[in-house]
Amino acid sequence: METLSQSILTKTIRQRPADSYKGTYGRVTLIGGNRNFGGAILMASAAAVYAGAGLVTTITDASNQTSLHARLPEAMFADLNNHEQMKSLVQSADVVVIGPGLGADEAGLMALNTAFSALQPQQHVVIDGSAITLIAQHHLTLPDAHLIFTPHQMEWQRLSGIAIADQTVANNQPAVAKLNATVVVKSHRTQIYTPSAVYENPLGTPAQATGGMGDTLAGMVGGFVAQFSNATDAVLAAVYSHSAIAEMLAEKQYVVLPHQIIDVLPQFMKAHEALV
Amino acid sequence: METLSQSILTKTIRQRPADSYKGTYGRVTLIGGNRNFGGAILMASAAAVYAGAGLVTTITDASNQTSLHARLPEAMFADLNNHEQMKSLVQSADVVVIGPGLGADEAGLMALNTAFSALQPQQHVVIDGSAITLIAQHHLTLPDAHLIFTPHQMEWQRLSGIAIADQTVANNQPAVAKLNATVVVKSHRTQIYTPSAVYENPLGTPAQATGGMGDTLAGMVGGFVAQFSNATDAVLAAVYSHSAIAEMLAEKQYVVLPHQIIDVLPQFMKAHEALV
Amino acid sequence: METLSQSILTKTIRQRPADSYKGTYGRVTLIGGNRNFGGAILMASAAAVYAGAGLVTTITDASNQTSLHARLPEAMFADLNNHEQMKSLVQSADVVVIGPGLGADEAGLMALNTAFSALQPQQHVVIDGSAITLIAQHHLTLPDAHLIFTPHQMEWQRLSGIAIADQTVANNQPAVAKLNATVVVKSHRTQIYTPSAVYENPLGTPAQATGGMGDTLAGMVGGFVAQFSNATDAVLAAVYSHSAIAEMLAEKQYVVLPHQIIDVLPQFMKAHEALV
Amino acid sequence: METLSQSILTKTIRQRPADSYKGTYGRVTLIGGNRNFGGAILMASAAAVYAGAGLVTTITDASNQTSLHARLPEAMFADLNNHEQMKSLVQSADVVVIGPGLGADEAGLMALNTAFSALQPQQHVVIDGSAITLIAQHHLTLPDAHLIFTPHQMEWQRLSGIAIADQTVANNQPAVAKLNATVVVKSHRTQIYTPSAVYENPLGTPAQATGGMGDTLAGMVGGFVAQFSNATDAVLAAVYSHSAIAEMLAEKQYVVLPHQIIDVLPQFMKAHEALV
Repeated sequence: METLSQSILTKTIRQRPADSYKGTYGRVTLIGGNRNFGGAILMASAAAVYAGAGLVTTITDASNQTSLHARLPEAMFADLNNHEQMKSLVQSADVVVIGPGLGADEAGLMALNTAFSALQPQQHVVIDGSAITLIAQHHLTLPDAHLIFTPHQMEWQRLSGIAIADQTVANNQPAVAKLNATVVVKSHRTQIYTPSAVYENPLGTPAQATGGMGDTLAGMVGGFVAQFSNATDAVLAAVYSHSAIAEMLAEKQYVVLPHQIIDVLPQFMKAHEALV
Repeated sequence: METLSQSILTKTIRQRPADSYKGTYGRVTLIGGNRNFGGAILMASAAAVYAGAGLVTTITDASNQTSLHARLPEAMFADLNNHEQMKSLVQSADVVVIGPGLGADEAGLMALNTAFSALQPQQHVVIDGSAITLIAQHHLTLPDAHLIFTPHQMEWQRLSGIAIADQTVANNQPAVAKLNATVVVKSHRTQIYTPSAVYENPLGTPAQATGGMGDTLAGMVGGFVAQFSNATDAVLAAVYSHSAIAEMLAEKQYVVLPHQIIDVLPQFMKAHEALV
Repeated sequence: METLSQSILTKTIRQRPADSYKGTYGRVTLIGGNRNFGGAILMASAAAVYAGAGLVTTITDASNQTSLHARLPEAMFADLNNHEQMKSLVQSADVVVIGPGLGADEAGLMALNTAFSALQPQQHVVIDGSAITLIAQHHLTLPDAHLIFTPHQMEWQRLSGIAIADQTVANNQPAVAKLNATVVVKSHRTQIYTPSAVYENPLGTPAQATGGMGDTLAGMVGGFVAQFSNATDAVLAAVYSHSAIAEMLAEKQYVVLPHQIIDVLPQFMKAHEALV
Repeated sequence: METLSQSILTKTIRQRPADSYKGTYGRVTLIGGNRNFGGAILMASAAAVYAGAGLVTTITDASNQTSLHARLPEAMFADLNNHEQMKSLVQSADVVVIGPGLGADEAGLMALNTAFSALQPQQHVVIDGSAITLIAQHHLTLPDAHLIFTPHQMEWQRLSGIAIADQTVANNQPAVAKLNATVVVKSHRTQIYTPSAVYENPLGTPAQATGGMGDTLAGMVGGFVAQFSNATDAVLAAVYSHSAIAEMLAEKQYVVLPHQIIDVLPQFMKAHEALV
């Protein structure tokens, strides 16, 4: 198991080439946010935009259209109930983030199935929150794509069948290999599994223990994977950045709100970019 | 009668344990905000989130869903008219805050009765604003739970039957004992009563005399009680913090807006946390 | 004609008495904002809140409820189409501000008539924008209350019948006397008329020449009149403050946006309050 | 081909005359933002307001009314489906900006045709995004007005028929002359064509490569043309300012968000105004 350090940032966050355009930095489609949990997909979407994704589209319940644009005019909106449009937006994406605030009910299941049916092998998909629960509950067949799961420990128990107390590296690794996925197991000390390696994030503060942190991380992972060519490094750098920013803010705050991490992200990334 | 001092803060606001998660910091369900008074529950909810509550759900009129998430994506939303969902969200809460902007009409009464019917003895409930008026007007039976009332002097008159001019410690104490509750009587110099003790807040500024201050305090009380093990100390620390921040801001402002107090709360709490 | 100076601020903005509550600082009801011009009443309402009014209610088209609370949770909302509720909210107000974004159509006229019918002699009413146009077009009978008009020069022409080129002090004074009102004639150098005196504001910058400035001033006038016992001084201090803040911001900005003036208002007032 | 320099700013951004009013700085009507792309017209509208346009009206899908006012109370709203009102608002404008987020579908086409039918020869119209695509796809007749196109390279290919690889100055100039328009071809190094001259913007940073940048530029162009008497210089100054601000922010940010450019615009313009 390798412990992450700041070097993952300079390894990953490259200086942008002068002659580039928004297509260079990827198209991210986020799917989530039912009527109750709209804030989750708003935070995930903002994280993707502030991470530097080129184009961001948010597919969410129609009741979230206005709060999305009130907070984040940079994102485009699509209606979660329009499954034809969803298919098209999934197909044209470089990265799909699905799950934040989606809800583990019938509507969430139908959206998840639609998105999965449209995914193609070269695409990356970040699977978070309710989407993980739905996969576990309904024994869904996973799509043929580059899979990145971002479960907290209870969601990982649901997905892997491994009880939280038994979630050791030795037990987790075979489960991850079977999924043929990257898995970010979120906890006090988040671990990141690929089929061939395990990493631990040494950072993290209890000031982060508040609703919406996971949604924000999922969006950051989406934004990083959309931009940086090595997907594993992109995931690692997103996880590390998320906690590093939280630790920085926690020096002066008892609790760190997710949107505050998002606000700081562009400056943080600039401070850690690798000069070519 | 004990006069509060800054020591209530370091006594109460503990350094967060490293190995904790959002569940550690409590689940707060807030109920209020009809179509006219939506801002009240938005401020109360934001106060709970910025105080550091782990998970916050706001049950409010459907017309407030978008403004809630536009200001506060960290909170979850539920519809005030969905009483089945409300019962479930009350049951799963550590702390319930009810009343800010609820309205003292029939719809408010029905919501209050539903919430009360779902409360359990180990739960804390902060009863504010219209909820206090409704209890007084309809002689409602109080639920078997840890009760915290946050009336201003007129609401306290309605609830206790004691006219404002007669609200002395000697008169208030038996009324509080009868309620078997903690009562925060808000005024120029707010007093906090428990069945066995009385405290006075020496702080407070006329710059605070503006709409929404009480709603903000109710949310802060909810957020503090959700996190800190001694509920009485949590109430005292919330009241003291609310006024201390206002006094700090009033050095440079003629009026202090409630949302400005909320914005400063995480920094204020950090500056006063007790290092373990 | 007296030229205003900074002394109007310290004469008017009194240090708040320690033992006061939100009722001390007045109840302001603002009426305006149809479906097209909602922003106008939002700015006026925010100006009243940030000026320090104790309680602010905004009566506006239902489609503006959410944007109001997204920007200003401190204000209460009421539906412009609910004339019974409007009457009640007018009657309970200390100051009514009517006109910003109201629209000069049939719906605006009906709202204006309803509000006027509910006013009582001791109340102050700030009449702005479309409300002035409606009075002129429909030859409405003015209510028996303390009237404050805030026309720009074209609106003053409509109301007084005096063409802009002829709006000299000598011509304006008899018209004002006939109205028995305070009239703020807004221009490059705003003049304030009472039945017995004329004042000129020496401040003002072309950086202020942008939509929404007048709405903001109307709200500030409402907020000042609600708090300060001498209504004429309150109007004068509001006009002076509005321009003084704009000049301050214009030192570093090519254009000054109305909401930026509002944001600075509490600090500006603190810097100029009279210590008792 | 002339390379732009900072001198275009002081040549264009004049010190505002003291005796001026909002009408002096122009009336800008923006048309765009369907249900999916509302953020685009919000950013364009904010850019026009923050650039200093005197009066801004945003004609957009009704579902964007609330997010518009939540972000920008300074703008007025009109419903994209109300074509009679649209005609009137186009006729009373000094500058029309059409296209950001309009959508290239039937509804967008109808709006575009309506707007074009109402334009008069002395008016300026900024044609952006979907509006350019619609003109190319439907071979629309251009209105008799001062035309400013702001295509990216692919949109310019659609409009001119010149493939991106062939978009040399020699090829572009005759196409621009035929359009009798000003054309801003956006790319890594944006070029601005008039029928008689070509300019290149030496500024621009890859940190700008994110969704919404073009919408923001279109709004800035509208705001500059509304205020400054030489329309060509106004376009050049808007293009130069947009990139100069982005470069300034990119010194500390990995990605620069469009709304951040807008926020800085009033200060930037002040720093570069020509003192008369």
